[in-house]
Amino acid sequence: MELVEGGLELLTEDECLRLVATRPIGRVAVTLAALPAVFPVNFTLAGRDVYFRTGAGTKFDAAVRQAVVAFEVDDFDVVTHSGWSVMLVGMVADVTDHERETFGGHAAPVRAWARGDRDRLMRVSGEIITGRRVSYAV
Amino acid sequence: MELVEGGLELLTEDECLRLVATRPIGRVAVTLAALPAVFPVNFTLAGRDVYFRTGAGTKFDAAVRQAVVAFEVDDFDVVTHSGWSVMLVGMVADVTDHERETFGGHAAPVRAWARGDRDRLMRVSGEIITGRRVSYAV
Repeated sequence: MELVEGGLELLTEDECLRLVATRPIGRVAVTLAALPAVFPVNFTLAGRDVYFRTGAGTKFDAAVRQAVVAFEVDDFDVVTHSGWSVMLVGMVADVTDHERETFGGHAAPVRAWARGDRDRLMRVSGEIITGRRVSYAV
Repeated sequence: MELVEGGLELLTEDECLRLVATRPIGRVAVTLAALPAVFPVNFTLAGRDVYFRTGAGTKFDAAVRQAVVAFEVDDFDVVTHSGWSVMLVGMVADVTDHERETFGGHAAPVRAWARGDRDRLMRVSGEIITGRRVSYAV
C-alpha cells in the first residue's frame, strides 16, 4: 500500500532504515544560537541509532547539551528526477567508554573522513523515523 | 591561502557559490515545533539567493513566517573520502508575482521534481555563506 503526501510516497520505518544503511554520509541539523545549522558526517547505522565521530565544536557542543537533532540521509538521481530522503529525529549523546565496550561488534567502528581530532563517538537515537520517495514528475 | 578549521579547509564565499551551482539538490533545515527538520529540494541559484518550489506544508509554513533557515548543499566521493559542503543561512520568503516579473530571466525557472501542487516559488537569501572541504584523512 502506497501512502502519498504532497506528491511524495511515504516510506515505512523498515524501508527508511534499509535505505539509510546504503549511504555513507548523513547530515546533522541542530539549532545554534537560535539559527539552524547543518553538518554532514560519515556515519554507521546500528538498529535505529546512528553513530558518527566528532571533536570539540558545534556538533559536539550540541551533543553534550543532550540536544534533539534531525539526522537526514538522502539519495537522488539527477537524470530521472527520482530519489528518497529519510529523517531520524532524536537525542544526540556522547557515547561513553563503558557503552563502547558493550557494543560487542554490534556497531561497526566509524572513522571520520575529516582530519583532526575526532575521538568522540556520538549517537543519535532514532526516536522518530520518517521517509519520503519522489519519482519523476510527469 | 588555505584556512583550516578542525581538519577541514574553509572555502571562500566565491568558492561556495561556485560549488552550490553545480548541484541540483539542497536541503532546507528549519525548526518545527521546537524540533529540527530537514527537507531536500531541487533548486536554482541566482546571485546569493536560492530558489525552490513548494506547496502548502512545512516548508511553506516556515516561509510565510519569514523564518531563518539553513540551506545546505554538499557533494562527496565515497571512494576518496573527499568532498565539500556549503551552508547558506538567511530568511526564507514567498516570492510574489511582482518579484517574479522583475526577474527578467535572471532566476531560471525551477520546477519541482515532486508531483503535487507546488506553485509557490520560495527564496532563501544567502546572508551568511560558509563552506568546508574535506579531503582524504591519511
